[in-house]
Amino acid sequence: MTEPAGRLAALRALLADRGLDGFLVPLTDAHMSEYVGAEARRLEWLTGFDGSAGTAAVLPHAAALVTDGRYSLQVRRQVDMALWTVRELPAEPLGPWLAAEAPEGARIGYDPWLHTRAFVEETEALLAPRGARLVAVSENPVDALWTDRPRPSDAPARPHDLALAGCSSAEKRARLAEALRAEGADAAVITALDSIAWLFNIRGADVPRTPVVRAFALLLADGRATLFLDEAKATPELRAHLGPEVSLAPYGGLAPALAALGGRRVALDPSLTAAAIAEAVEAAGAAIRWMRDPCVLPKATKNAAEIAGARAAHLRDGLALTRFLAWFDTEAPRGGLDELSAAAQLEAFRRELGALCDLSFDTISAFGPNGAIVHYRATPATCRAIAPDGLYLVDSGGQYPDGTTDVTRTVAVGRPPPEAVRAFTLVLKGHIALATVRFPRGTRGGQLDALARMHLWSAGLDYAHGTGHGVGSFLSVHEGPQRIAAAAGAPGIEEPLRPGMILSNEPGFYRAGAFGIRIENLVLVVEDPQPGDEREMLAFETLTLAPIDRRLIDPALLTPAEAAWLDAYHARVFAAHSGALDAAGRAWLAAATAPLAAPAARAA
Amino acid sequence: MTEPAGRLAALRALLADRGLDGFLVPLTDAHMSEYVGAEARRLEWLTGFDGSAGTAAVLPHAAALVTDGRYSLQVRRQVDMALWTVRELPAEPLGPWLAAEAPEGARIGYDPWLHTRAFVEETEALLAPRGARLVAVSENPVDALWTDRPRPSDAPARPHDLALAGCSSAEKRARLAEALRAEGADAAVITALDSIAWLFNIRGADVPRTPVVRAFALLLADGRATLFLDEAKATPELRAHLGPEVSLAPYGGLAPALAALGGRRVALDPSLTAAAIAEAVEAAGAAIRWMRDPCVLPKATKNAAEIAGARAAHLRDGLALTRFLAWFDTEAPRGGLDELSAAAQLEAFRRELGALCDLSFDTISAFGPNGAIVHYRATPATCRAIAPDGLYLVDSGGQYPDGTTDVTRTVAVGRPPPEAVRAFTLVLKGHIALATVRFPRGTRGGQLDALARMHLWSAGLDYAHGTGHGVGSFLSVHEGPQRIAAAAGAPGIEEPLRPGMILSNEPGFYRAGAFGIRIENLVLVVEDPQPGDEREMLAFETLTLAPIDRRLIDPALLTPAEAAWLDAYHARVFAAHSGALDAAGRAWLAAATAPLAAPAARAA
Repeated sequence: MTEPAGRLAALRALLADRGLDGFLVPLTDAHMSEYVGAEARRLEWLTGFDGSAGTAAVLPHAAALVTDGRYSLQVRRQVDMALWTVRELPAEPLGPWLAAEAPEGARIGYDPWLHTRAFVEETEALLAPRGARLVAVSENPVDALWTDRPRPSDAPARPHDLALAGCSSAEKRARLAEALRAEGADAAVITALDSIAWLFNIRGADVPRTPVVRAFALLLADGRATLFLDEAKATPELRAHLGPEVSLAPYGGLAPALAALGGRRVALDPSLTAAAIAEAVEAAGAAIRWMRDPCVLPKATKNAAEIAGARAAHLRDGLALTRFLAWFDTEAPRGGLDELSAAAQLEAFRRELGALCDLSFDTISAFGPNGAIVHYRATPATCRAIAPDGLYLVDSGGQYPDGTTDVTRTVAVGRPPPEAVRAFTLVLKGHIALATVRFPRGTRGGQLDALARMHLWSAGLDYAHGTGHGVGSFLSVHEGPQRIAAAAGAPGIEEPLRPGMILSNEPGFYRAGAFGIRIENLVLVVEDPQPGDEREMLAFETLTLAPIDRRLIDPALLTPAEAAWLDAYHARVFAAHSGALDAAGRAWLAAATAPLAAPAARAA
Repeated sequence: MTEPAGRLAALRALLADRGLDGFLVPLTDAHMSEYVGAEARRLEWLTGFDGSAGTAAVLPHAAALVTDGRYSLQVRRQVDMALWTVRELPAEPLGPWLAAEAPEGARIGYDPWLHTRAFVEETEALLAPRGARLVAVSENPVDALWTDRPRPSDAPARPHDLALAGCSSAEKRARLAEALRAEGADAAVITALDSIAWLFNIRGADVPRTPVVRAFALLLADGRATLFLDEAKATPELRAHLGPEVSLAPYGGLAPALAALGGRRVALDPSLTAAAIAEAVEAAGAAIRWMRDPCVLPKATKNAAEIAGARAAHLRDGLALTRFLAWFDTEAPRGGLDELSAAAQLEAFRRELGALCDLSFDTISAFGPNGAIVHYRATPATCRAIAPDGLYLVDSGGQYPDGTTDVTRTVAVGRPPPEAVRAFTLVLKGHIALATVRFPRGTRGGQLDALARMHLWSAGLDYAHGTGHGVGSFLSVHEGPQRIAAAAGAPGIEEPLRPGMILSNEPGFYRAGAFGIRIENLVLVVEDPQPGDEREMLAFETLTLAPIDRRLIDPALLTPAEAAWLDAYHARVFAAHSGALDAAGRAWLAAATAPLAAPAARAA
């Protein structure tokens, strides 16, 4: 029963035993996490799809898997298309499919710890016309079948250095408590793992690539709090760090603790709270105050210490990437490199600098056609040799105590086709337009997205993913609430960009079966007062420091201002890293960052 | 009692007699019109403010008038600031003021024919904490005091030529009836005057500057309809045009007709339907199907005949404006012109061509500091002489049987200050960025707004109004649903732009006390397929044909592509009009439209 067909059949049989006509299998956990521990990868176990976003719906006669544009190609490679109907967000949400396919009067199971109440209500509204409904299950049937399901991580919870956090947990809790009182709430249940890590200044290793601790928190309006986590994590060191205002309780102790909140007003975030928690709060006789997780905005707007850390992390990370790119330029033409060995070498360069805690996500190391698979992960089965001619795309990042990085570079191996040079230059023009825009305070990411696309649009091209996501401070590489994207109603695009927010700037272009291009730097939102300004203006400071392949740029397509930006950026990159490189490395970087007008550019 | 202080006092006394603590006075009519007949200008009668948007709230001890950024300066000039608290949208909605100022338990009157149910519900929610509430009045107290209130217009309702409409009313009604059946509705109440004019292919003159007929319509799901309008308008010619499927009833007959809908499902547009109509539908025992007025989208997406008409109307209108600009260039330096005489001459040039039915709005003819008053209307009191040096801004348009126009030009009189030239050039760069953008089908106006602002933003400048509004076909000069604007949640910015939609492209810049700049052309959304496109691309075709003042352009600030756009546009303008001009006019236009690189540009 190790292969998907058998697992799907077994699930259907078990559902029938339990009097259910269907079941929903999302890729998340009880914290509504985007990235989850191995124990929560039920979607992959059932379908074989190992992308980072998706939900499966199983019915007696049909099964659907919904994901998004990033995974168009990958999902079709990984799942048995004879068993699964693939749908793609935002155009093809799961709900309408379920409403159309569900048998009359169907009882469709769901795990109330893995869905928000809003999702449950929306889905039930869609099912109502067919007399079908959702049924909460107390035990997840997938877990009953997944005999070799991993146990949750037992990694320790460690204090996060105050010098890096820039603000003590006591101070954060005091400010949030004040906000809760202002909202007329007596307490808040904090479920998001990165919010908990931020609020208590702790970091862990319970989720791959994200230094969070698997825990829930109950914050009271007087600043005291209870942290619910595995007993093994409650070390004396942790207790000493948290202090007397924070009591520890077992991970499973949240529900009982909620039962004691009768008569209180409890703040819950509608998008981060499992339906089971909302039920427990109401069952306790407490009133729910639906509001955004109060950690979200202060976490997103980095303080001075976090900003200093981000700059230091990017300097370090940029040096490692620069060494890799120099090495790659020498090795790739010789042949003998493949996607996995290149990624391993990049990780080695990052580790060599000593401060790396983990990668911030699985490296995307993609050569040629694999580059067109937006969130491609090389496996022994798919791994391509890097040779002789083609585009190599590497999207990677590091988790450092002082910051989280995320950077994509696309480099030419051999002679790049003119079509790729043109597309790369159009992507670069969009990247520069976003990197250089000044905008009034209050501007939302959704207003700026088109700046990154307009040059591709002029050629009838586009890319099927967002332009910018928030990034945490030694936390999640995808952090809300801000976002730069095109999709109508995409979460975060209506969020005003505020000084201290860190976002990615990552336009791209993908030619299925041929190549992928993405140019990604992280940028920091900064105040940008200048003489003559009549508005309070903000701008982006580019944090990432690594060369952009000049061999893929057609200077004739750049305006003087765009060429000047690239030259100035490259001068910054050279100044940042040249001192740390040996003579050969410095010579390579000097050529890689030479002004576009310089002979080297033509030589390439 | 002719002056505002007396009127406000009299209203308060009458409210007290009627046991009311307050009253709301919006500037709209029973059709939720933006532009209304003189009989509905209660706001102006009460406050003296004659802008096109605003609502007043009167309480025993305080009174507020809310309008928007366009009227910041004008409202303060026109209303007695000792009597009125002025608030500005979007930052300062009326509701919170009312909730803060209303006495405990206040009963605040409103006319249910002048507010939507949504407005009533939102306002009541804000008032609830104070135990205050809204009370529907059967007779509007303003009307009781407004002794010399004008009678509604008795202008006739005339058929709109089928060759210009491009689609018969019967065909439109058949399509809409099908849409209603698809929505499970038995009927729809159409209240918007432009929807009614479009649906029945009729035009009138009941609202200044907008060729609509004051009427309601009840459309049945079988395509039959009843048109409710003043008996005097029910001429044999109109009956013959409408045919046997459309019955006529008195304007006041809507409410009784609704009473006969018991048990039916009636479609109402939440944003266009007066609360009184929703009450009447429910009182009749009918069920409300809230949905968008089914006329809105087909009306906004012009058909081939309407597009041909728009091009013809803009050719004609551009010729009149070009003649005016040539005349102005000769006359202005001589002195002796003022804002009113210039506007009169522009209207004369439009009339001279024979097809003008009316202006599409009161001409904005503003010299120097008056140009900074975004929706300025010259009056004998405010009228400025045009001399000797300054910027002249003229925003005007015509209503022609084949189309509605709206165009703004800003021209220099004497030597323009360098600051104005820089600002004008930045505004022009934004105008060009929007005029030349290609975008994938599905793109919304809100995504494109920043293209028109980014160059101003780079200098720390901006403008406090939208960038583009929809325009009707011989109908309202402000037509939904599409819109290009920045404000979060502004109506229409999430509406996908569709081929056939007409919008304005009108970035601007305003220096209070000094000058105003706006460059406005109307553009048509067109399909723009090109070799190599990987998306279905749309683009804008500029409809407006009149020169843009080269003396206000700093060519050094334009990219070669921007300069090329302007030169190509000017070549189009010259080709369009030169044949219709006398020798002197042709010579003027040749110079006004000469390529930027040409000596003339320097000479200026």
